Amino acid sequence: MATTRSKKPDNKFQPRPRRFFSQVSWNLDDWVVKMMHEDHDECDVQICRLMKPDDANIAGNVHGGIILNMIEEAGIIASTRHCNNPSHKDKAFEPSASALVRVETTDFLQPMYIGELAELRGMVTYTAPHSVEVKVIVTAENLLKGTKRLTNYATLWYVPMSAEVDSKVLSVPPLNYKSKEEEEEGRLRYEAQKAQRRKIGLGGRPSLLIKDDYNKNGSPDQLSVSFSSSSLIHLIGPSDCNSFGYATGGVTMKLMDEVAGCVAARHCRTNVVTASMDATNFHKRVKLGSLCHLTGRATFASSRSLEIEVMVDTEYLMDGSKVKERAVHAFFTYVSLGPDGKTRPIPQLQVQSEGENIRFQQGKLRYEQRKLKRAAANKKKTSTS
Amino acid sequence: MATTRSKKPDNKFQPRPRRFFSQVSWNLDDWVVKMMHEDHDECDVQICRLMKPDDANIAGNVHGGIILNMIEEAGIIASTRHCNNPSHKDKAFEPSASALVRVETTDFLQPMYIGELAELRGMVTYTAPHSVEVKVIVTAENLLKGTKRLTNYATLWYVPMSAEVDSKVLSVPPLNYKSKEEEEEGRLRYEAQKAQRRKIGLGGRPSLLIKDDYNKNGSPDQLSVSFSSSSLIHLIGPSDCNSFGYATGGVTMKLMDEVAGCVAARHCRTNVVTASMDATNFHKRVKLGSLCHLTGRATFASSRSLEIEVMVDTEYLMDGSKVKERAVHAFFTYVSLGPDGKTRPIPQLQVQSEGENIRFQQGKLRYEQRKLKRAAANKKKTSTS
Amino acid sequence: MATTRSKKPDNKFQPRPRRFFSQVSWNLDDWVVKMMHEDHDECDVQICRLMKPDDANIAGNVHGGIILNMIEEAGIIASTRHCNNPSHKDKAFEPSASALVRVETTDFLQPMYIGELAELRGMVTYTAPHSVEVKVIVTAENLLKGTKRLTNYATLWYVPMSAEVDSKVLSVPPLNYKSKEEEEEGRLRYEAQKAQRRKIGLGGRPSLLIKDDYNKNGSPDQLSVSFSSSSLIHLIGPSDCNSFGYATGGVTMKLMDEVAGCVAARHCRTNVVTASMDATNFHKRVKLGSLCHLTGRATFASSRSLEIEVMVDTEYLMDGSKVKERAVHAFFTYVSLGPDGKTRPIPQLQVQSEGENIRFQQGKLRYEQRKLKRAAANKKKTSTS
Repeated sequence: MATTRSKKPDNKFQPRPRRFFSQVSWNLDDWVVKMMHEDHDECDVQICRLMKPDDANIAGNVHGGIILNMIEEAGIIASTRHCNNPSHKDKAFEPSASALVRVETTDFLQPMYIGELAELRGMVTYTAPHSVEVKVIVTAENLLKGTKRLTNYATLWYVPMSAEVDSKVLSVPPLNYKSKEEEEEGRLRYEAQKAQRRKIGLGGRPSLLIKDDYNKNGSPDQLSVSFSSSSLIHLIGPSDCNSFGYATGGVTMKLMDEVAGCVAARHCRTNVVTASMDATNFHKRVKLGSLCHLTGRATFASSRSLEIEVMVDTEYLMDGSKVKERAVHAFFTYVSLGPDGKTRPIPQLQVQSEGENIRFQQGKLRYEQRKLKRAAANKKKTSTS
Repeated sequence: MATTRSKKPDNKFQPRPRRFFSQVSWNLDDWVVKMMHEDHDECDVQICRLMKPDDANIAGNVHGGIILNMIEEAGIIASTRHCNNPSHKDKAFEPSASALVRVETTDFLQPMYIGELAELRGMVTYTAPHSVEVKVIVTAENLLKGTKRLTNYATLWYVPMSAEVDSKVLSVPPLNYKSKEEEEEGRLRYEAQKAQRRKIGLGGRPSLLIKDDYNKNGSPDQLSVSFSSSSLIHLIGPSDCNSFGYATGGVTMKLMDEVAGCVAARHCRTNVVTASMDATNFHKRVKLGSLCHLTGRATFASSRSLEIEVMVDTEYLMDGSKVKERAVHAFFTYVSLGPDGKTRPIPQLQVQSEGENIRFQQGKLRYEQRKLKRAAANKKKTSTS
Repeated sequence: MATTRSKKPDNKFQPRPRRFFSQVSWNLDDWVVKMMHEDHDECDVQICRLMKPDDANIAGNVHGGIILNMIEEAGIIASTRHCNNPSHKDKAFEPSASALVRVETTDFLQPMYIGELAELRGMVTYTAPHSVEVKVIVTAENLLKGTKRLTNYATLWYVPMSAEVDSKVLSVPPLNYKSKEEEEEGRLRYEAQKAQRRKIGLGGRPSLLIKDDYNKNGSPDQLSVSFSSSSLIHLIGPSDCNSFGYATGGVTMKLMDEVAGCVAARHCRTNVVTASMDATNFHKRVKLGSLCHLTGRATFASSRSLEIEVMVDTEYLMDGSKVKERAVHAFFTYVSLGPDGKTRPIPQLQVQSEGENIRFQQGKLRYEQRKLKRAAANKKKTSTS
């Protein structure tokens, strides 16, 4: 069978080019647009994976936790490669495994479906003496139709941990920036996240009971906080871990999204999907053989979204300490979808105790801050464009 | 959007409370009813997992082996935590990994489906100097409808193995019982299972050929024992193991149910589901890198159920010994379901040799003992209630 | 319920015997026919696995990579068992893990579907001082209908690597052949593959850029090589590895088929399935913690098949060397299926550079050699039968 070698095929049959992205209503950050259109040779890492039935709910929507897990896999690869790069070597080389310490707010712009090809591109965008910033974008490609949509973008922070000495933090080789401005912008992002991490607190802390004020008398009301609150336990096994016996941050985020999804489904009784994860700090690495206790509870409901607080407490069984430590604490936002794929109203959340009321008001503040932040980002774009 | 804070919502829209369990026709043991209605804070362990397409057969029924695997995961967590609990410490602490040695008869009361949330609760209910009894109940929650059904309950026995010295059995810290009666009842259960384990034999034994008397002349008849008999081999990999390089009992039970399911499907050619697993002893731990040889054959068929004998022989490839040892031996009962989800008649089993006939008569005895036992349990309940 | 013990059941209800294989149009090698009809007790290894939704594409066809992975699992078990067999011991026993070094051309004769039982049988068929040849056949059994089809057969070559000393190749215990002819035929196959491996080159080699001549100006044309070319990165985790921390060849082949499938789907935009993998050498074992870079590009399209070249480059992150080495290089052939399951025409491949044209001509030669080889095999059968 002959093939043509013409560089200009007949335009009649010219389909949409593969790099076409369907439009999104969000105003995207500059770096996202740049990475979307950049050749993938210029990215530090590119991962592709076909979405399978087990990755999705019964409506065919890929779970947010699966996407967060892939994002973190891209992040860990980019950071580990950068830190183990000998061209940056200024002293004796010491191999490191990168540990996730923070994920900035991550929005789920569009759903991803079974059968689509998820493509993730990651790049190291800033380095501090002991931290690495990685930016990742996620696109979903429909292989049959040839369309490609942007579904997520995320910023992650890693710290290189010695592969030889436990809990030893290593130095990060410096990054070559394209311009002074690029370095300065990165430094501002680094200072901002550092302040956030300090505010919330660092290091493994004793876990706090979250069930202090639950209504324990009789069956809880269907729309109450205690009705939908959920918990699960997971024993960290070998396939959850990196090659040095620590659970990856992606596995933890996948579990967090699972427990948040249970809360949302119990409250809404519909097809619920992850809309965003607020900026989240990872205080503690989780060792192979540890028990992860995950707890989720609804904190705030607007007419179209439900905020869910998720806590991860870990307990290492092999040292006999029986101490539970808070490893992660995060806020997820879920939306409810109808059979037509459009968002549906969220049932009102019934607040039944003083604690629940305080958390509801705090949730409302976070909800309004998110709205303001989005509006500000849109305004900035409009003024600069 | 405003939320109400009323403690009593309008009863018109009050759905069935989440703790509602649909009725089961079985007469349940007291401890099952107690654990079903207990707050989950009072359980030693609670696991939740959403059932995925890969967990089920093509008719959407979750495989019995998946449920047995989750049951054992709950058991291993409860036992490991209890044994590594320093508050019980009376001497130098030595960490242990719990190894499954026995599962009491486990009935599959109701099917579980894709998309349901499996919730497992486990509690340590008795401790002997070197054994731990864990009881587990399994419920299936339909997140969209808000209904919850009891699907399984099980009793498992564990032995704490040293995490540092291979094959060293450690002491179990004593349990605090609520009453003398509770302790005494546990002691009776402990003695009963010990007698059963002694009767059947302990320790890894050389595997016995099970194909001694098969009709090897020509193609086997469609309903004969040799026609449906099945075998499979599985190489124990890192993701099958606990953090000390031994396969979990749950992985072994999952494989056992797989081979039993093949036998049942080959005999019935319908949607077959696990109805029960008889009390089963685990003679030998299976090391990472071992080959598991699983063999299943039909032993007895009543009009509505098929009994399948499953044998697990293991062979460790790295010591050059080429010795196969019998690790587990169990009886599964399967039922056949029609498209309406109702049980269908089982085709008669054609017994073609003396050995098959002996096993058929023994199977018939076990079948009648199971019926008597169930009737006795029902009578006991009726008289005590 | 009574069972009959008659050895001859009523023929009226006699279904097709289980060992029946539906006819294939291929002329099968003698060893395939022999292994198909042999009792499985005479095989070195037999693996069964039920095909699940995650193993297949959206049309229900099991991915070729899943089948290649199972084939390699059967091969690794047969080879490891043979090499660690003490009955062959002539000196101090040293345990070994078998590493895949070559797979001969593997055709996908018929599709396999979700819900079918894949059965693999493997046998060691020749041994050289440091190499083991394993032959594997794959059948798909429809458990509900009782039919069984041959879907694949494959020949794999392994080398025993010391489980104690890294990179040390051990001696293979000799095989007992049934006849001088059998041994001589095996020796010829061994010499032939050795010549092939020498021709292509042995050992990890520096990876070569494959994107040298791509059209980078603007969006690529829909049917061009650069449009459908795909790449993915995979970090080798614990569950990808054998018990000594090296990725199995099967995991690598599964990833290779994944990237080839992306290329084929992007070019054809239909349900594409693997038709064959050409003979492939595995130059380098891939360590736990390595990055696998997989790249695929279309090289040749006939009217009914698409040839895709796949390259695997590995990069071990923990030694700071930042050297990528070519681990595998293979050619896959894909066909495109319509909704009726029949093959559809392949769109013409647009060749846009000198390099693409050279590869296209080389692909055409390979395509014609494959046709000649198949014709020769058919002729040989006809003349000997």
